[in-house]
Amino acid sequence: MTRPTTRSPDVILARTRELTTPPLRAATDGLHPSLARVCAYHFGWCDRYGSPRRGAVPSKMVRAATALLAAEAAGGEHREPAAVPGAVAVELLHNFTLLHDDVLDEDKLRRGRPTAWVVFGSGLAVLAGDALTAAAARTLADIGTDAGHRALAILLECFAALCDGEADDLDLSRPTTVEDYLRMSAGKTGSLLAASAAIGATLASGDDRLVGGLRSACLAAALAWQAANDVEDIWGWGDPAVTGKPAFGDLRQRKVTLPVLAAARSGTPAGDEIAALLAATADDPPWDVAHIARLIEKAGGRAYAEQLARDQLITAHRELDRVGIPDPAKSELASLFRLIVTRTF
Amino acid sequence: MTRPTTRSPDVILARTRELTTPPLRAATDGLHPSLARVCAYHFGWCDRYGSPRRGAVPSKMVRAATALLAAEAAGGEHREPAAVPGAVAVELLHNFTLLHDDVLDEDKLRRGRPTAWVVFGSGLAVLAGDALTAAAARTLADIGTDAGHRALAILLECFAALCDGEADDLDLSRPTTVEDYLRMSAGKTGSLLAASAAIGATLASGDDRLVGGLRSACLAAALAWQAANDVEDIWGWGDPAVTGKPAFGDLRQRKVTLPVLAAARSGTPAGDEIAALLAATADDPPWDVAHIARLIEKAGGRAYAEQLARDQLITAHRELDRVGIPDPAKSELASLFRLIVTRTF
Repeated sequence: MTRPTTRSPDVILARTRELTTPPLRAATDGLHPSLARVCAYHFGWCDRYGSPRRGAVPSKMVRAATALLAAEAAGGEHREPAAVPGAVAVELLHNFTLLHDDVLDEDKLRRGRPTAWVVFGSGLAVLAGDALTAAAARTLADIGTDAGHRALAILLECFAALCDGEADDLDLSRPTTVEDYLRMSAGKTGSLLAASAAIGATLASGDDRLVGGLRSACLAAALAWQAANDVEDIWGWGDPAVTGKPAFGDLRQRKVTLPVLAAARSGTPAGDEIAALLAATADDPPWDVAHIARLIEKAGGRAYAEQLARDQLITAHRELDRVGIPDPAKSELASLFRLIVTRTF
Repeated sequence: MTRPTTRSPDVILARTRELTTPPLRAATDGLHPSLARVCAYHFGWCDRYGSPRRGAVPSKMVRAATALLAAEAAGGEHREPAAVPGAVAVELLHNFTLLHDDVLDEDKLRRGRPTAWVVFGSGLAVLAGDALTAAAARTLADIGTDAGHRALAILLECFAALCDGEADDLDLSRPTTVEDYLRMSAGKTGSLLAASAAIGATLASGDDRLVGGLRSACLAAALAWQAANDVEDIWGWGDPAVTGKPAFGDLRQRKVTLPVLAAARSGTPAGDEIAALLAATADDPPWDVAHIARLIEKAGGRAYAEQLARDQLITAHRELDRVGIPDPAKSELASLFRLIVTRTF
């Protein structure tokens, strides 16, 4: 059975959920009952009491979709099933980072709901994250083929890179440079998206050159995604009730993200004012988020981040071209990248 | 070069440290600098500022020693080097559990020093633990042989069991049964010691029957070890400055350990008094640790735990006999088990 045309991202994501959700739920249901409950809540499948939750906004599963599309890119449409354990593993690993990062960053809201540590305590949230990393690795170890072992090695390398990225993030509580920030984005957002593609392609027996090209494309797409997220987090593009994020969220938490850093080094009067605010301690002068957001915009910080997102998206598409990914996989990956950066279908 | 005689446990442990410490340090030194510092402090190699620490009490590395002895048991003395990555991996995984458990249980002292989360904050301590699990798995993935892949699968299975064991432990804040407690000990102490032996033997190409026998022996030894630790934690057998543990430590924290549970179900007046105290809330009646320790002893809780330790130690030795582990590996494993349970050489 072949697909005659290129699918739209919503069709791709729906298909990804259809293939990935059952084994993902089986993996978390198999955990210790206390941890299975935390995970079912965190993934949005149940409420805090374990009752099925209707009308929940499902995770987009971008990383799983990337793994499945990379398998198609490497071996054709019929290779998609081989990559399902890879899609499951990267979603498990991704959700480990969410569970732990929410504890570490003391974030209280995710997808419009209280975070798992707020509901269940930080002990169970940390432990549920630990259990997800074990489950992620076991999902690939259980394949038992050479390709499975290679995919597991990629996952473990990514796991280590995610820890490094979060360590950078913890160090980032004080101002740093645009370059440091991009390195951190590469470590956190980039390494997982790149690993998703590499794992999918490896499970479909893709060659090294193709895996390398997919990795570079995903790294660029991830930098674009992070920059777009930073812009969204300050200026939003939707109702906080839908995005699940309060307006000026990062600014309220004094997170120093890309638009802030770009503004602070702009050499403009608005940028100098931001730099001075970042250097000041505590609430003196007062931290007025709406005012700071205007300053960042005036200093060109927003424009810088938006331009970087556009440039990196173009780089990602060029990489897919360069290594000769065949259609429809190439167009579908490109449209998935466009979706996560621009949120338009 | 062959060894003419059976070595004493202190010689075995010194040899283990000699073989295991350099690759262990290389693994933690390779982490993000912020995490490498937490690990160097946690392992006792450095003070909190990163300066080398003299006169530190080194970790006994019982799990690494078990892995190396299991390799000898499976393949003879010359197989020891093949098991070194296994010894490193189990120590990395063990120290992940220590870092995370100290955060989850809010324990403030370990080996006589403030725990890592007290010094560096719980965020960095959790993240350092995460990084150690990644490093543990990568140490075995890097071997790249079939035996390496099998050893990695054992490590990952153990990682999942440790998460389950800690989840049981978190559930154990209220009284439960002796049987629940033994299941938790099997999950926490037992699974790691059993995995250490299984990984060592697998890397030395041991057959399934031998690996199974070593696992059972280690599981019994670990139950004995946990029971002996529980007794030590209440009544001690040394200076708190040397053991690094305050007297009545578990009782002060109202941890319901084996001697407490055995006492509470003894049907004696002292046991009934303990059961009533466990059912009471907060400080009403007052929680007098010295008085409770006397009650536990009177109700036979201490004797029960000591007898269980002796019985399980005998079971462990019988298992080594049953699967026909050759000497000197058999005698050396037996003496290592005796050491960890009785603390006598």
